[in-house]
Amino acid sequence: MLNKNIETFLCCDGEYQDADTVLFGAPFDSTTSYRPGTRFGSSAIRRESFGIESYSPYQGKDLEDVRIFDSGDLELCFGDTKLALQQIQKHTAEILRDNKRPFMLGGEHLVTLGAFRAVYEVYPEVSILHFDAHADLRDEYLGAALSHACVIRRCWELAGDEKIYQYGIRSGDRAEFQWGREHVRTHCFDFAGLEQTVCRLKDKPVYFTVDLDVLDPSVFPGTGTPEPGGVSFDELRKAVTMVCSELKVVGCDVNELSPHYDMSGISTAAACKIVREMLLGFSDSTLERV
Amino acid sequence: MLNKNIETFLCCDGEYQDADTVLFGAPFDSTTSYRPGTRFGSSAIRRESFGIESYSPYQGKDLEDVRIFDSGDLELCFGDTKLALQQIQKHTAEILRDNKRPFMLGGEHLVTLGAFRAVYEVYPEVSILHFDAHADLRDEYLGAALSHACVIRRCWELAGDEKIYQYGIRSGDRAEFQWGREHVRTHCFDFAGLEQTVCRLKDKPVYFTVDLDVLDPSVFPGTGTPEPGGVSFDELRKAVTMVCSELKVVGCDVNELSPHYDMSGISTAAACKIVREMLLGFSDSTLERV
Amino acid sequence: MLNKNIETFLCCDGEYQDADTVLFGAPFDSTTSYRPGTRFGSSAIRRESFGIESYSPYQGKDLEDVRIFDSGDLELCFGDTKLALQQIQKHTAEILRDNKRPFMLGGEHLVTLGAFRAVYEVYPEVSILHFDAHADLRDEYLGAALSHACVIRRCWELAGDEKIYQYGIRSGDRAEFQWGREHVRTHCFDFAGLEQTVCRLKDKPVYFTVDLDVLDPSVFPGTGTPEPGGVSFDELRKAVTMVCSELKVVGCDVNELSPHYDMSGISTAAACKIVREMLLGFSDSTLERV
Amino acid sequence: MLNKNIETFLCCDGEYQDADTVLFGAPFDSTTSYRPGTRFGSSAIRRESFGIESYSPYQGKDLEDVRIFDSGDLELCFGDTKLALQQIQKHTAEILRDNKRPFMLGGEHLVTLGAFRAVYEVYPEVSILHFDAHADLRDEYLGAALSHACVIRRCWELAGDEKIYQYGIRSGDRAEFQWGREHVRTHCFDFAGLEQTVCRLKDKPVYFTVDLDVLDPSVFPGTGTPEPGGVSFDELRKAVTMVCSELKVVGCDVNELSPHYDMSGISTAAACKIVREMLLGFSDSTLERV
Amino acid sequence: MLNKNIETFLCCDGEYQDADTVLFGAPFDSTTSYRPGTRFGSSAIRRESFGIESYSPYQGKDLEDVRIFDSGDLELCFGDTKLALQQIQKHTAEILRDNKRPFMLGGEHLVTLGAFRAVYEVYPEVSILHFDAHADLRDEYLGAALSHACVIRRCWELAGDEKIYQYGIRSGDRAEFQWGREHVRTHCFDFAGLEQTVCRLKDKPVYFTVDLDVLDPSVFPGTGTPEPGGVSFDELRKAVTMVCSELKVVGCDVNELSPHYDMSGISTAAACKIVREMLLGFSDSTLERV
Amino acid sequence: MLNKNIETFLCCDGEYQDADTVLFGAPFDSTTSYRPGTRFGSSAIRRESFGIESYSPYQGKDLEDVRIFDSGDLELCFGDTKLALQQIQKHTAEILRDNKRPFMLGGEHLVTLGAFRAVYEVYPEVSILHFDAHADLRDEYLGAALSHACVIRRCWELAGDEKIYQYGIRSGDRAEFQWGREHVRTHCFDFAGLEQTVCRLKDKPVYFTVDLDVLDPSVFPGTGTPEPGGVSFDELRKAVTMVCSELKVVGCDVNELSPHYDMSGISTAAACKIVREMLLGFSDSTLERV
Repeated sequence: MLNKNIETFLCCDGEYQDADTVLFGAPFDSTTSYRPGTRFGSSAIRRESFGIESYSPYQGKDLEDVRIFDSGDLELCFGDTKLALQQIQKHTAEILRDNKRPFMLGGEHLVTLGAFRAVYEVYPEVSILHFDAHADLRDEYLGAALSHACVIRRCWELAGDEKIYQYGIRSGDRAEFQWGREHVRTHCFDFAGLEQTVCRLKDKPVYFTVDLDVLDPSVFPGTGTPEPGGVSFDELRKAVTMVCSELKVVGCDVNELSPHYDMSGISTAAACKIVREMLLGFSDSTLERV
Repeated sequence: MLNKNIETFLCCDGEYQDADTVLFGAPFDSTTSYRPGTRFGSSAIRRESFGIESYSPYQGKDLEDVRIFDSGDLELCFGDTKLALQQIQKHTAEILRDNKRPFMLGGEHLVTLGAFRAVYEVYPEVSILHFDAHADLRDEYLGAALSHACVIRRCWELAGDEKIYQYGIRSGDRAEFQWGREHVRTHCFDFAGLEQTVCRLKDKPVYFTVDLDVLDPSVFPGTGTPEPGGVSFDELRKAVTMVCSELKVVGCDVNELSPHYDMSGISTAAACKIVREMLLGFSDSTLERV
Repeated sequence: MLNKNIETFLCCDGEYQDADTVLFGAPFDSTTSYRPGTRFGSSAIRRESFGIESYSPYQGKDLEDVRIFDSGDLELCFGDTKLALQQIQKHTAEILRDNKRPFMLGGEHLVTLGAFRAVYEVYPEVSILHFDAHADLRDEYLGAALSHACVIRRCWELAGDEKIYQYGIRSGDRAEFQWGREHVRTHCFDFAGLEQTVCRLKDKPVYFTVDLDVLDPSVFPGTGTPEPGGVSFDELRKAVTMVCSELKVVGCDVNELSPHYDMSGISTAAACKIVREMLLGFSDSTLERV
Repeated sequence: MLNKNIETFLCCDGEYQDADTVLFGAPFDSTTSYRPGTRFGSSAIRRESFGIESYSPYQGKDLEDVRIFDSGDLELCFGDTKLALQQIQKHTAEILRDNKRPFMLGGEHLVTLGAFRAVYEVYPEVSILHFDAHADLRDEYLGAALSHACVIRRCWELAGDEKIYQYGIRSGDRAEFQWGREHVRTHCFDFAGLEQTVCRLKDKPVYFTVDLDVLDPSVFPGTGTPEPGGVSFDELRKAVTMVCSELKVVGCDVNELSPHYDMSGISTAAACKIVREMLLGFSDSTLERV
Repeated sequence: MLNKNIETFLCCDGEYQDADTVLFGAPFDSTTSYRPGTRFGSSAIRRESFGIESYSPYQGKDLEDVRIFDSGDLELCFGDTKLALQQIQKHTAEILRDNKRPFMLGGEHLVTLGAFRAVYEVYPEVSILHFDAHADLRDEYLGAALSHACVIRRCWELAGDEKIYQYGIRSGDRAEFQWGREHVRTHCFDFAGLEQTVCRLKDKPVYFTVDLDVLDPSVFPGTGTPEPGGVSFDELRKAVTMVCSELKVVGCDVNELSPHYDMSGISTAAACKIVREMLLGFSDSTLERV
Repeated sequence: MLNKNIETFLCCDGEYQDADTVLFGAPFDSTTSYRPGTRFGSSAIRRESFGIESYSPYQGKDLEDVRIFDSGDLELCFGDTKLALQQIQKHTAEILRDNKRPFMLGGEHLVTLGAFRAVYEVYPEVSILHFDAHADLRDEYLGAALSHACVIRRCWELAGDEKIYQYGIRSGDRAEFQWGREHVRTHCFDFAGLEQTVCRLKDKPVYFTVDLDVLDPSVFPGTGTPEPGGVSFDELRKAVTMVCSELKVVGCDVNELSPHYDMSGISTAAACKIVREMLLGFSDSTLERV
């Protein structure tokens, strides 16, 4: 008798009850203001993960030794943003309830709000570590409060002042930078100062959100709003490894891959490797509920 | 002193007060369930219109002789569907108030609902002539009632039974076809029977909505949901010419061009020519308010 | 507890024991002489099948009513052609042993040889119905006897004279056409005469192999060796429906989609619909082992 | 000792002195007003010709039996149109002087003027048979008399009234169509009437120029100015076969392939097959100087 | 009453009389010897500028505070190089006459000659600052003196020895480098030494021409002749900011974006940001006629 | 009389007997496990070499002064790996027999095995210098011993321990890295330590194989298995120049360009320049048979 066709991220084919971390996709991009397409990001990452090795020569670890479950992509509603965010929140809450770490693959950055709401309910003191080219601190965008350009502002409404640490920011309007100076800790252009932040957040619950457009477009052209002048792959790789291996990450996401804009596939390859390094980074850490 | 840079569809550079027809773009695709990108349709049509001639050897008419105004693209909210439809409705109503014919370039097909609402307020007895590959008669789609897959159903809620004539339909779920048999007049696959419909609608106000994916994907690959087995360019060209030259079209739209999916540009070229033939078709007809 | 991520062709998510037909992918293209890439065909068909409807307005049937199992893609060896063909043959034999119809998605056309070998063992009197732009009757190609350009010649070595019916052929070298006249029944350019062949093969076991490049490249540009002058989508759709609903097809395949060569996705959409129509065509027929 | 790397169109690798027909490329597109790129046309045709067979099942002939020489691409000056046309004229004249038929691969359509000048010097009574989507009869275009949009007008200045027969024309400005009615014989949209023209031109010297955009863009998307509504591949194939096998073609060209606009390669494949059918069409005819 | 559709570079929508700087496009690429397409550069920059923010976190300035006018694209003649250069020169002269700074968007690099001629008439002592991968110092190229490969040589014929400073040069033939050593100041590979040049040119009129292929192709793949080994985005960003904020730039251009060669759009995004940083760099400087 | 159309890498158009180095292409990719297409690499390099200059400002040398012969592409069998490798070995042996240096352009990396076998027969003490992102040390891959993922392991079976030096390696499975530590000298991530290796190998025969995916995918996206985190163009350029100008390279290859995956052409441009720098690096060295 033949088996059903199960498709997961590379090596993430174990049983749910054994897993520490649960991957899932949130294919949503309805609020994207410039070029849509991130809805195809999570499935591309899953599919193309078989083009990379499970072993990391950087960390000397192998995904074959790690217990991760991939529950596939959510089927989200396009055009009704509130409903889509509720679906994401519900799925994330279910994973947290089973004492596992949710790892969401976007989709546009707004999906972070759904996952963060669920995390915040369990960890109200949670901090946010945010890697991005864009500040995402607008109060509204073209009339919408639920927009990818406002997602960190919405998260701030839950988390509060001094809880959000941004790195790599190189784009935003003047008001965002002004507002940010009073409410969040914005580090522009690169990861300078990340080590201190990691020290400060040690042992505290952290939600980690990686907008892949923090990378330079030369490395990661497949995204909706490319911003020249970003960090290199090695800089991002080292930064996510530090965060995932040294901090208590209670939830995370990787988002904004729009694979159709990069026929060469190098963007998806970069996304796959970043996900691999994050999963391997977690593999020695223990996730205990506070 | 240098002039400002005004960009319009080919030859549509006259003054507003002189125009019979007013073109505008509705760059919206937030509810697109499969592949987004029609938000780039209207600007692509405007830009690439300069690759075709203003003269039609089919009709022996020239756009240089026609008075059309192009008001550019609306700046619509992504992610808040209701708001976007209101913006479209308001703009359409303004054109109607000035006794001109609104001609909207999509965007996804849902934009038709915004324009039709405005037309219906002025012409409550209006019929709809609908060319499309898809029935678009779902009551809801993935939880959303305001979806491109439901647009004609939403229009029917205003227009009522026996007012909607569909041509070229070759895709839909079973329930749509069943529901359609009782409420609308669905003609599958091609334009057979269009002449009789044109006879029947003579002198009555008609809203004409053209989803360009009624074309075969070989002619029109640049669309979100290509459906093999469609009509040829010449079949569509003849059909729109008949409609626009013989019926009292009080509003119309052309939608679902997603130019990024067709690098060759043939889809945009086809869209430009269909728009040209429609504008030329109108040029002898007179638009009088009932 | 969350479920594993199962990915199948649209609606083919039932249980193995209930299924009449078993889909599987054979992602292999090592012998392709011109432009490789058909290895990505089967997974693209599976993935993009969610862009089409399960209901066919042509046949008035719905995939939701049909029992099909999709066992996913085989993991084939690249570069060792013999080994890959053995893997395909073994998988096909297993499906036949369970009294089900194997339906293989290529891959290049050579994969047919692996499946046909398994079918021939069970049905030694089997005929082959072959739709293709290319005769595929070479005895060897660039020194290789196991080549996509020789696949029907290799099948003939099993099936024998007068058992192979070709339709749509419009490319081959002079020797192929000469050899073909004596050993197979080649119908050039289109499906003229297919009805008579269907009559003749009634109730006899038939292996049905569809090289999608029989379609005109305008409809199906995503293939390794496009040959202008092919049949239309509707011609192929009607032909496969006739074959699958009227003949006793004991095994079949659809091959030569190379999705990377067609960014617009219309080739994959056409492949998905042809597969859907074939599956629906089978749905009233009964498959009884001779 | 190893051989030099000689690259020719499929099978055109004989010796110059033996050849009846001499192929050469004219990679020039400086006057292209819309989308350039035809400069890559001739080399693409040469390279991709190895993807088609040398045997034509339509004519039952094989390029292996025909004597053709391919002298490669001219190295033309970009930006100095006069100079480029002189280079083309000189090369064509050399081929004619050796009593062979020049067969030029464009490049944009303006290159025809260079070749025609050479042909006209030898055959001052020559007629022109012109297949195209565009009339190309403008007197000047954006200030330039030497433009691809004016090429047939420039040829008319040599050949005179009633010597030019156009087929397939479906685009031009009003003035071109008006002027054309008095000076050339324009047949719009398709090849209706071609048989009569072939009868009339029997045994007279003919220059045959094929702008491939006469094909529908679905078949031939890879061109600078796609015009929906064109002829099918089979219609063009039959027409060029009739012309080349029945008329005394003393020079010819095939132009306007812009391969970069068609990643799928179907446009180049269509061009290769049209060139093959033309070369095979010539193969029974005898070329005698008047 | 609806407004006309005015399209400008981001925020450059003020009135002509108020503007210090006037943007315009020169869509010309007829002399491009390798891959054409820069004719689409200026319109792509204008259109895609809405994907970036008006605020620069690098300079802390905002385009909303700057007075710039965008007069759109010139309609240039293709194929008649002299005429096209005259059109550019005339337009530039008009802007200079109104005491404003002309900022031209190419097009191929040859367009610089047209603008520089106009600038040279007003500022005969003007120096040229030239960022490029290519020396562009040939005396003629394939027989043409007016070629993109000769443009700086042509400018030198006006400006004279020791007036031209080149940075980033990494490609040229041997003769260009030899000739350059005696007549211009060529700095290879990067911007080493730029600060000294800026000191030397302080308060003197400078024409600043930026060939964007000075960037590494990883950052800027969308260009006709990519040359690996170029400068990074941040290096170029800093260099143009220094030049525009510290020198008296009396005219400038940014050229050689060929957007069709980069589907991902990162090249156009980089061009937009370089233009933004240049415009912001000017915003404190005062432009006084000598 | 016209000349035949000879196509070579830039300036490599001399006579065979005069040449020191002989270029040839090995268009083979049948064992490629992820994304095929390197079969188009060698012809793309030859064709696009005319987009770069023959002069190198890095080395101050010009290809016009160097004597190289280009024998074109081998016609290799697809699908029969053993046969293809024999064809490559035979061709390489012929070049070595004439006391010239073979310089092979791939194709996938497995082609190295064919060339190395021939070199090893002449120079049994030969060392291998290997630049790559991948270790290529697997014993078998998906059941095949002759696979691109095993090529260096196969070479090691001839050359033996301590003869293979790898640089830039950043991908492999755990077993490869473990095995490698005992049998080859693997330098991860970059070229650190290359100078010492060059010292050690001075005057000894070296086979030099460059898998271009050692480059970062931002510089070289056109390859089958992109691995983010690679070396820059300048790092590779310097490294190959050092190797080719200081070592006794008795054979070499450059492989894994898959041009179709990079529409922008920057990958091919990078490959062309690396080949140019290698050819120029050789130009002062003398190749004497041991």
